[in-house]
Amino acid sequence: MIFTVEKNDPLCRARTGFLQTGHVNAETPVFMPVGTQATVKTLTPEDLYQIGATIILSNTYHLYLRPGESLIARAGGLHRFMNWERGILTDSGGFQVFSLSAMRKISDEGVEFRSHIDGSAHFLTPEKVMQIQMDLGADIAMCFDECAPYPCDYEEARQAVERTTLWAKRCRDAHHSSRQVLFGIVQGNVFPELRLKSAQDLLDLDFAGYAIGGLSVGESKEEMYGTIKVMDRVLPRDRPRYLMGVGAPEDLLEGVRHGIDMFDCVLPTRLARHGSAYTRRGRITVRNREYAEDFRPLDPQCGCAVCKGFSRAYIRHLIKAGEMLAHRLITYHNVYFLVNLMKEIRQAIRDGSFMDFYHQFLSLYRIN
Amino acid sequence: MIFTVEKNDPLCRARTGFLQTGHVNAETPVFMPVGTQATVKTLTPEDLYQIGATIILSNTYHLYLRPGESLIARAGGLHRFMNWERGILTDSGGFQVFSLSAMRKISDEGVEFRSHIDGSAHFLTPEKVMQIQMDLGADIAMCFDECAPYPCDYEEARQAVERTTLWAKRCRDAHHSSRQVLFGIVQGNVFPELRLKSAQDLLDLDFAGYAIGGLSVGESKEEMYGTIKVMDRVLPRDRPRYLMGVGAPEDLLEGVRHGIDMFDCVLPTRLARHGSAYTRRGRITVRNREYAEDFRPLDPQCGCAVCKGFSRAYIRHLIKAGEMLAHRLITYHNVYFLVNLMKEIRQAIRDGSFMDFYHQFLSLYRIN
Repeated sequence: MIFTVEKNDPLCRARTGFLQTGHVNAETPVFMPVGTQATVKTLTPEDLYQIGATIILSNTYHLYLRPGESLIARAGGLHRFMNWERGILTDSGGFQVFSLSAMRKISDEGVEFRSHIDGSAHFLTPEKVMQIQMDLGADIAMCFDECAPYPCDYEEARQAVERTTLWAKRCRDAHHSSRQVLFGIVQGNVFPELRLKSAQDLLDLDFAGYAIGGLSVGESKEEMYGTIKVMDRVLPRDRPRYLMGVGAPEDLLEGVRHGIDMFDCVLPTRLARHGSAYTRRGRITVRNREYAEDFRPLDPQCGCAVCKGFSRAYIRHLIKAGEMLAHRLITYHNVYFLVNLMKEIRQAIRDGSFMDFYHQFLSLYRIN
Repeated sequence: MIFTVEKNDPLCRARTGFLQTGHVNAETPVFMPVGTQATVKTLTPEDLYQIGATIILSNTYHLYLRPGESLIARAGGLHRFMNWERGILTDSGGFQVFSLSAMRKISDEGVEFRSHIDGSAHFLTPEKVMQIQMDLGADIAMCFDECAPYPCDYEEARQAVERTTLWAKRCRDAHHSSRQVLFGIVQGNVFPELRLKSAQDLLDLDFAGYAIGGLSVGESKEEMYGTIKVMDRVLPRDRPRYLMGVGAPEDLLEGVRHGIDMFDCVLPTRLARHGSAYTRRGRITVRNREYAEDFRPLDPQCGCAVCKGFSRAYIRHLIKAGEMLAHRLITYHNVYFLVNLMKEIRQAIRDGSFMDFYHQFLSLYRIN
């Protein structure tokens, strides 16, 4: 894996860089759209190329349960299975096994749980999770981690950090692939000393990149941003830093400001399902009556294919009529909005005007 | 409107031609994908250009009820509303008001009915239907007709023909648009003498084109084909002939053979919703277990973008996972299959080999 820092912002910790490994050829900071079940909901790879996405995220937990990693391996790997030629990062399932599955039992050995699909019993260990991700053939694999809930007490969070370190060692030992790199995941909830301890444990294991896990799970913005700042003090500047599950526009700006290089988030696709679209002035709920005769595009300042061709009134009509095209059009726009925001952020960093861009964006964008 | 017959097949009644009016620039025979609610389900206009569609069908009944023709008029017409630059034909609602609405009461004046969406009461007359279609701005409008059910007795069918003629006169009188042409719809169920009478009545009114309505409603293939043959005896060769609601591959071939120039059908989109895809050997139900590890495209002989990139196994996975992309990919393929079949049919007619193509296609295609 090659990770080159191209430009450091003089006023904050923002930087641009270039990440190259396997199918990944990504300018950073980068937003990675989420394709949980081997599809970024409603979009084709062709759409995502057009949008400018360079890495997508997919999920070990979901693909292991359905259709199964061995079927995907027989299909020639996840890239070929879903017809995607650019980068894929797979999350380890650590988060999903805690948030989605039923009747889980965790021990140092691994996690026993029942599938959210059919109730079948499963047992995932760090070694098994490495084997699944190698079978899937992702370009970037993630360590199996324990994500403590929010809120939780110090002792609970401390134990999750210990187990995450133990599992990270076992992941590193079990991972053997010349075509896939492995990232560690820092846990520690909102306790700074646990975050620092977790990061130090992982640094000793020397991963290709470091992720900040367990955020955007209910904590306040202050707690999230505070944790990112703490991480900035210890994570090495020569490795990519990935803030997991975070993708609200204001959080992308804040993350970049504090040195984050990679983000992923289900929000653009999930919001689309609820008829909600990003604009430079905040989110709008297109299904609302006020847009019935609004013949402007979703975001008048957006240059995406959807905003070039379709009005709020038309998309609202599709929503009211129960037409899937609504979901597709809003998803396309929302994913474009975030991918393009990152592009503008990178340009601002290169131009030495990132903090101006940051303030200008946030002065217009109504957070809701 | 310009309709030019280019080539007549020497062995049957098939012909190629060119239809030009408004946004329509279509080679005939042509298959028109159905976009009932101002969208060909799951597809964008860009997809349809890529597929090669030149005319789509939309529905007066649906658009009148939602979002309303006046909103579409304020949006600049249906083309602009849905961002479609090629031809649009709108069905008159005659068929839908009988098949979809509740509590209808029909008289010579018009049809009183309740909306299938919210139960609201409405009254449609031939004059109102003309106004709606002019407001929508379709390139080709259809007369308001009465479509008798199948089966029905002779007297019922005779009365529907009489009313259809009466309404066709009123439609012709009420229709005034320099940018829209009007087609008549022949009724008469499966009674040859009524079909001939209906056609003669409409010919006296001199429409730009003639449609055969009230078929594909439950009658046998023999009755459908028999009716098409009867129509071929009386419909003028210098006007386009449109077989409404028919689109099974075998019916397209049979229709072309007997001189039909235009077809529409919801089957390619509806079948996609049920996980069923066209192939040269018949339809396959991709959701079935037998395709779980079938890494071939939907139709190995198809050249569409979906068959170039995605396997049956992947699309089955999407269906099982409840992913909308499945619906989108199969719809794209199914619409391409029929649009491309018509292209091959036109080429065969031009090459003087249509009947060879007809027999070759049907020898492979398993009808189910």
